Amino acid sequence: MRAVVLGAEGLRFQSDYPVPRPADGDVCVRVLCAGICETDLALVAGYMGFRGVLGHEFVGIAESGPFRGRRVVGEINCGCGACDWCRRGLGNHCPRRSVIGILNHDGAFADSVFVPQDNLHPVPDEIETREAVFTEPLAAAFQIPAQIPLERGQPVVVLGDGRLGNLCAQVLTKCGCAVTVVGKHDRKLDLLKRLGIKTVRLEALQRKQFADVVVDCTGHPTGLATALQLVVPRGTVVLKTTVAGEQTLRLAPVVIDEVTIVGSRCGPFSTALVALRDQTIDVRSLIDGMYPLEEAERAFQRARTEPLLKLLFAVDPAACS
Amino acid sequence: MRAVVLGAEGLRFQSDYPVPRPADGDVCVRVLCAGICETDLALVAGYMGFRGVLGHEFVGIAESGPFRGRRVVGEINCGCGACDWCRRGLGNHCPRRSVIGILNHDGAFADSVFVPQDNLHPVPDEIETREAVFTEPLAAAFQIPAQIPLERGQPVVVLGDGRLGNLCAQVLTKCGCAVTVVGKHDRKLDLLKRLGIKTVRLEALQRKQFADVVVDCTGHPTGLATALQLVVPRGTVVLKTTVAGEQTLRLAPVVIDEVTIVGSRCGPFSTALVALRDQTIDVRSLIDGMYPLEEAERAFQRARTEPLLKLLFAVDPAACS
Repeated sequence: MRAVVLGAEGLRFQSDYPVPRPADGDVCVRVLCAGICETDLALVAGYMGFRGVLGHEFVGIAESGPFRGRRVVGEINCGCGACDWCRRGLGNHCPRRSVIGILNHDGAFADSVFVPQDNLHPVPDEIETREAVFTEPLAAAFQIPAQIPLERGQPVVVLGDGRLGNLCAQVLTKCGCAVTVVGKHDRKLDLLKRLGIKTVRLEALQRKQFADVVVDCTGHPTGLATALQLVVPRGTVVLKTTVAGEQTLRLAPVVIDEVTIVGSRCGPFSTALVALRDQTIDVRSLIDGMYPLEEAERAFQRARTEPLLKLLFAVDPAACS
Repeated sequence: MRAVVLGAEGLRFQSDYPVPRPADGDVCVRVLCAGICETDLALVAGYMGFRGVLGHEFVGIAESGPFRGRRVVGEINCGCGACDWCRRGLGNHCPRRSVIGILNHDGAFADSVFVPQDNLHPVPDEIETREAVFTEPLAAAFQIPAQIPLERGQPVVVLGDGRLGNLCAQVLTKCGCAVTVVGKHDRKLDLLKRLGIKTVRLEALQRKQFADVVVDCTGHPTGLATALQLVVPRGTVVLKTTVAGEQTLRLAPVVIDEVTIVGSRCGPFSTALVALRDQTIDVRSLIDGMYPLEEAERAFQRARTEPLLKLLFAVDPAACS
């Protein structure tokens, strides 16, 4: 099958990648559309040491099981199903988990991907395929209200105007928070402004310690240090992006101001699908391009070097229009 | 008056330090006994750039106000009383606060210290003066159950076998947690063992990710990194000690494992005084020495270089026996 493969020599398109062997309980999903994520760029740069087919944001057609023939999206953490974590419903943290396209599990930048049946969610008919591919990152944004209490009118800063920052800002605005997005790119900030969200360029930021909650979506090692300058005493910093390597920062302010730092990763697919069905979150305007799998290297090159929002792979072009 | 003063040339005892001028609402407290804290050592090393009389753990006699003639202890944060923080009962985080012996407020290693009336708590008769001096650090330990939910039998690790680590371990044991203290000093670990608390030497620590809660009392830049190795996914790391300067660490595990990091500083004096009165926490065995103010330099020298627990100043020797 066709696949975008990360190997020792880097990323490349292969037309003859062997179809992976499914584990018990896996469903073969014929991929229609898939999205490039910041994590994919990090993996190509060496994060996690991943080797195999990339891709964890996808929509496809289930080829077996109860959703056979229907469009599905899939949660990416594949727990063992037997350990304490899995039994407590926290399979996302199963120590023996694989993660689709990230850890010991071939991903979705391919004609087919194998996904545990329990990870699949059918896509409501109202959602276009190219919108449904945002389910995974949108669920990650919805993990914030699932983890921390938020109040109506509460001052919240989202650091970063990229893909995830945009989705987090929209979700937190829907939660009633008074959101300000801090970013570096006029075009991306304009997009947020058009959605009615307050924005400010990083270099114009003058106030300190004014946000009850700061969400770091910068994907940058300096994100946490900036967040600690903006959060009020007793406030919360949500770390939303994984940064490879080490960060250097002063931690004394965390103690003195009794700040809480919350790591936040994958979130509830069902909530994201409802938001996409009801169009309460705009994802269409984030799509900056669509590529066939064969042009993966060019797509990654653009994603890495240009200030774009979301690039998609039209794995089945007819389904992605 | 006599005072232990931190100046540009370092720490020194002065016999003729001018008695500070009290602000409105301040009470002059004639100091009986005071304790040297890790923060005092950090201040001498340059942390916060403090200049003036050191000392924030103290017991004395109130010379005016409703507690006149009685033994008192004093909370160390002196809020403005007028701002939003103070009005919400969070004067500990007042942006205009002074902090006794730490920030713009002369401390208690002296014959007298001025303390806002509202900061004072009378000491129950059952508590000896040299025990009551532990109210401030013990309150800081009680801030942990005030900030985070704890469950009976929950695996908790306290990193650090020093003064604050000892008190935190005792408090968390009283909360019903299954506490293990990780330390470097046999004598200090033995003390905890005698209190029925499980201990392990840092270099013998083999298990990873087994504690629901890890409390960093190391006062060391590597404390958080060690804590992140020990805490389970979705667990909580409590940062209890301020470390001057910068720390370097990998933050990706915080996101991947959705760990919560909670900065924790000063705590409830009333809870600490009840525990001292009821003798549910042992502080006597932490006292490793008592010095007159005149020997401050020697006491600090020992506190800095020897693996001791608590050194006290017997400001009024007759009251400290």
